[in-house]
Amino acid sequence: MKAAIIGATGYGGADLIRLLHNHPEVELRSVHSSSQQGIKISESYPHLQGITDLVLQDIDPLLIKQQADVVFLSTPPGVSRDISGQLLEAGLKVIDLSGDLRLVDGKVYEQWYGIDAANASLLEKAVYGLPEWEKEKIQSAELISNPGCYPTATLLGLLPLVKNDLIDNKSIIIDAKSAVSGAGRSPSPVTHFSEMNDNFKIYKVNQHKHIPEIEQGLNVYGSEVPFVTFSTHLVPMTRGIMSTIYMNSANSQLTEKELRDLFEETYKNAPFVRVRKTGEYPSTKEVYGTNYCDIGVTYDDRTGRITVVSVIDNLMKGAAGQAIQNLNIMNGFEETSGLNYIPTYP
Amino acid sequence: MKAAIIGATGYGGADLIRLLHNHPEVELRSVHSSSQQGIKISESYPHLQGITDLVLQDIDPLLIKQQADVVFLSTPPGVSRDISGQLLEAGLKVIDLSGDLRLVDGKVYEQWYGIDAANASLLEKAVYGLPEWEKEKIQSAELISNPGCYPTATLLGLLPLVKNDLIDNKSIIIDAKSAVSGAGRSPSPVTHFSEMNDNFKIYKVNQHKHIPEIEQGLNVYGSEVPFVTFSTHLVPMTRGIMSTIYMNSANSQLTEKELRDLFEETYKNAPFVRVRKTGEYPSTKEVYGTNYCDIGVTYDDRTGRITVVSVIDNLMKGAAGQAIQNLNIMNGFEETSGLNYIPTYP
Amino acid sequence: MKAAIIGATGYGGADLIRLLHNHPEVELRSVHSSSQQGIKISESYPHLQGITDLVLQDIDPLLIKQQADVVFLSTPPGVSRDISGQLLEAGLKVIDLSGDLRLVDGKVYEQWYGIDAANASLLEKAVYGLPEWEKEKIQSAELISNPGCYPTATLLGLLPLVKNDLIDNKSIIIDAKSAVSGAGRSPSPVTHFSEMNDNFKIYKVNQHKHIPEIEQGLNVYGSEVPFVTFSTHLVPMTRGIMSTIYMNSANSQLTEKELRDLFEETYKNAPFVRVRKTGEYPSTKEVYGTNYCDIGVTYDDRTGRITVVSVIDNLMKGAAGQAIQNLNIMNGFEETSGLNYIPTYP
Amino acid sequence: MKAAIIGATGYGGADLIRLLHNHPEVELRSVHSSSQQGIKISESYPHLQGITDLVLQDIDPLLIKQQADVVFLSTPPGVSRDISGQLLEAGLKVIDLSGDLRLVDGKVYEQWYGIDAANASLLEKAVYGLPEWEKEKIQSAELISNPGCYPTATLLGLLPLVKNDLIDNKSIIIDAKSAVSGAGRSPSPVTHFSEMNDNFKIYKVNQHKHIPEIEQGLNVYGSEVPFVTFSTHLVPMTRGIMSTIYMNSANSQLTEKELRDLFEETYKNAPFVRVRKTGEYPSTKEVYGTNYCDIGVTYDDRTGRITVVSVIDNLMKGAAGQAIQNLNIMNGFEETSGLNYIPTYP
Repeated sequence: MKAAIIGATGYGGADLIRLLHNHPEVELRSVHSSSQQGIKISESYPHLQGITDLVLQDIDPLLIKQQADVVFLSTPPGVSRDISGQLLEAGLKVIDLSGDLRLVDGKVYEQWYGIDAANASLLEKAVYGLPEWEKEKIQSAELISNPGCYPTATLLGLLPLVKNDLIDNKSIIIDAKSAVSGAGRSPSPVTHFSEMNDNFKIYKVNQHKHIPEIEQGLNVYGSEVPFVTFSTHLVPMTRGIMSTIYMNSANSQLTEKELRDLFEETYKNAPFVRVRKTGEYPSTKEVYGTNYCDIGVTYDDRTGRITVVSVIDNLMKGAAGQAIQNLNIMNGFEETSGLNYIPTYP
Repeated sequence: MKAAIIGATGYGGADLIRLLHNHPEVELRSVHSSSQQGIKISESYPHLQGITDLVLQDIDPLLIKQQADVVFLSTPPGVSRDISGQLLEAGLKVIDLSGDLRLVDGKVYEQWYGIDAANASLLEKAVYGLPEWEKEKIQSAELISNPGCYPTATLLGLLPLVKNDLIDNKSIIIDAKSAVSGAGRSPSPVTHFSEMNDNFKIYKVNQHKHIPEIEQGLNVYGSEVPFVTFSTHLVPMTRGIMSTIYMNSANSQLTEKELRDLFEETYKNAPFVRVRKTGEYPSTKEVYGTNYCDIGVTYDDRTGRITVVSVIDNLMKGAAGQAIQNLNIMNGFEETSGLNYIPTYP
Repeated sequence: MKAAIIGATGYGGADLIRLLHNHPEVELRSVHSSSQQGIKISESYPHLQGITDLVLQDIDPLLIKQQADVVFLSTPPGVSRDISGQLLEAGLKVIDLSGDLRLVDGKVYEQWYGIDAANASLLEKAVYGLPEWEKEKIQSAELISNPGCYPTATLLGLLPLVKNDLIDNKSIIIDAKSAVSGAGRSPSPVTHFSEMNDNFKIYKVNQHKHIPEIEQGLNVYGSEVPFVTFSTHLVPMTRGIMSTIYMNSANSQLTEKELRDLFEETYKNAPFVRVRKTGEYPSTKEVYGTNYCDIGVTYDDRTGRITVVSVIDNLMKGAAGQAIQNLNIMNGFEETSGLNYIPTYP
Repeated sequence: MKAAIIGATGYGGADLIRLLHNHPEVELRSVHSSSQQGIKISESYPHLQGITDLVLQDIDPLLIKQQADVVFLSTPPGVSRDISGQLLEAGLKVIDLSGDLRLVDGKVYEQWYGIDAANASLLEKAVYGLPEWEKEKIQSAELISNPGCYPTATLLGLLPLVKNDLIDNKSIIIDAKSAVSGAGRSPSPVTHFSEMNDNFKIYKVNQHKHIPEIEQGLNVYGSEVPFVTFSTHLVPMTRGIMSTIYMNSANSQLTEKELRDLFEETYKNAPFVRVRKTGEYPSTKEVYGTNYCDIGVTYDDRTGRITVVSVIDNLMKGAAGQAIQNLNIMNGFEETSGLNYIPTYP
């Protein structure tokens, strides 16, 4: 199978290149960029010297179709909205890592993203690619909307509880922390090393675009969740997300064992979800560079609250890794194909 | 005024030395340690070479009294419990940075600390040294119990709301993040550089010793708070704490302006509390090396929740700085004396 | 005494504000910027909220003179060259932290900086402000050219040896490492957190503008040094410079003790230079936030080489701290006035 | 092929597990430790949960031989010296990552390591496993002594020049910088996060054990090199080494192009050495997690000096990665087998 990447110079693109280069079933044939056409990708990313000689090309659906069967979009808001339809028409399978096609309701998109939404027919075609909860739809999809990094960590930690009506749905509070690579590759004051090093910041309190995506995900797979409270923080590190999730148990008789059994049962066939042992919580470095989502869970008798701790590598399970997982499922490859990485530790 | 430090080789001790060395009203006369007697403190801390020639001495109340009027304890659990009575009897004023005398109820101490509590008469003498809320008691105290780092950040962010009955007291969730210096100076696997760098960890979920201290503080200054949910995380940085605090508003008519006005009014005479502007939240580096507590606050109409963000330097307002602030108040010095530091930024 | 800062929004400016705010002899009266006039400096630097209400003003010599006696320039290349003459004419004392007036020979400046040099009469007036070696000239100066960060660390480590003809002057190799704040406050790909974190980079091999400044300094205070080899590296940290300096001893009979005695004798009256004990070498954190230069030195019998290790805080002794030290000396204040900081450790 | 690891709980061991788990030709069958027998390796390294269930076993040559054909030693000084002979006798191939067998002359070992050397016959059997320079010997070896991290980076950067007599052999100065993982997994004050974060340290000036190893390597492959000057620094990062190497050119007519051509010619068949383009120098992150050694080289007309910049991942090309490369060569596998990793960037 032949693949192309649009938006190859960003961090999501770089990890896609890393993964596709060693994928046993796929060959990366072309890389595309809106701004740096004609230069080698290894000039933009010197760590790729000697590994690939691919040259950045225009973003042209027909040009891409000549070279590839499937195309990944790792692009800013508004690009996939405008171009995914043409890519599908050209006969390509499309995996979109941007947020353009994640929200089923265009009005909600417009409210949170502040730009026009994709047209309804395109939104309808898009399958939300959270493989642990949508495997069947992904298997037959032509167009995947790859979930956001925070929603991935958060939904994997919340859905077992929401689906089984184990919590007070109005009580969900998600305190999320992200590595700085989540802010992308464009330099800015916020991501300037001297400002961010040895610093811890909160940002977008109650205003992050991932809020409606999380709420939509909870309502699709569970019963009614009116809202969640969601805050995001920047950690002085390169890769990793932790979602610490708090909620009131709906059942005062709940035991910690039942809770853990539920998570293990839910994810027994999910190769990338690791439910951690009683009393053990994951740290972000334990999934570094891989597609794992590690989950710790506990119940506090004193307060009646459940705490779920979910960690991922934001560029992997939160972006490129999950995109490859979706590629595998939609093409009938082994789900873990090209993703058998062990965390780089320490 | 002459001062001594017990436990001078730890990080709290190091910052006390830094502050006392330049304090206009106080002279540091002796440093004491349980283990490294006879060596210069500048051998333990090379950054002090050429600044002080003090030699570590035994921990002996009479010896200390010969040299000092006030003594700071920056010691592990169990030391202050055993020795503070003797220090008082010797005629010293005592400022205890450990947790031994913070919990009024010895049984609660024993439950959370797992060792015997101080006797009741000593606990009764100790004044909880949170100056923004206890200035009068501190003015006449002989024995100060300096608050913990997490409780300081958290109580300063919560008390205005709890005292004024603005929130549902059962809804408080505190997601706290600390720099690694909070774990002290003893090397351990958790604080090993290669494990902690580029990593984000959660620890002591629902089990931190600071939980009863926060709950006690809320109940002393506010109306009944049955419990809080409190989790702690380690950030790969040296100094700083952020408490992100979530709670349900008791009043659906609350406006963000009222909320901010309340904080500003509460702390209008507090020289170290800075209430940040609407839409602005503090980051830990903005208080680096200083005694400031910066607070951001917002109200979310959509969820009916208040979010408070409170940051301090854990070794300053969370330990040594607040201890000096208490020293100033109990001795009638200017509250900011010796604490006029500007954040070292970047 | 009243002071002004031109270029207050950069990192050098921020540290000048920090130092001047607490200086017992000087009051900071105005701050000036080429681009952000009319906004409060505390909007550019939130850590200054509640500390100063100064508003950024135009860069206008007469306006500055109305408010100040002395002015600091913390500006990019070309600004001081164009404006220092006018500032002097307006009757101000000038301390220039930029590189514009450091090189006595305008042609050398033009060769390394790539822009026109200041006119010769201005260059002649400027005194190179390395206080440990130029105290007398500084005392009577009206215009100080504050040394570069690398040259400060390097010259303090090399001059005792060069002046006393103890080394082969052709053998000097300086391997310098700097924190990222040395690159300034403007975001760029090189200083983007995700690229620089957990990374170590070399840059400007044999091409750094500080090479001629070091060579000039060695030749002014010592005998002929034809050239030095000088490389610079970026360390993933915020503050600090280490110069590791290698050279062949001119004297095979040299003992390590003689070497150390020479350094101690040279700097016995220098309050900010700390010569470390035998076998001990400084680390950058040991001078964090202060004006110290710590020096370790050793001689290797096996190779006949001397190694000198010199560390400073690049924004302090390498910029703002040294500027204040110069201010003190040129105005007859105590040399350490306003600079009695103890390293913030850890 | 079946493999075992002795010393599996250290960082070298962890990376060996990572590499062997995905190696197409080898299966990791057992892990051994001197102290934690009976526990799962995934209890020591939670990032391995769900990946391997191997349980730590005793270090017993016969026990190992029952399970494996080849054994890796990732052990402290003195272990390989004592046990490698028995492992060979048991019929195992041995790859030793420790320093015990690297120095041909036992007396030199004893001088620098301070403990007894291995016996001469064992030392004689050991082949120094620097594949780019010893491929033939490695192909027929039974016992490989895997080079040290610093010597690997340094020798790959120096040997082309030394072998071709292009430099003054007395002029070599190596300024080396290492990530903290090079100090191993045992917590210590030096590697304590709060001390090492935002800090840059020099250590073991003129005294590092890798000095004789580098000198030996230069003399084996080149003409006489009497000594090198070698200093080591700790960088606040997890993985990576940079050797910045300075030397006087023996030939004042040398052009930069000739220099680069020499490096490219030397390593044209070396799949893991990447010679960087003119004017481009590698940073450590560009080889993160891989077996690459990236080299930049330049010549400075002004000083007559050559500078070589060589970077590796200290746990990969500096330890586990090179060990696998040696395994591949000695067993006739593809040299890059199991090592086709692309740098994890950013």
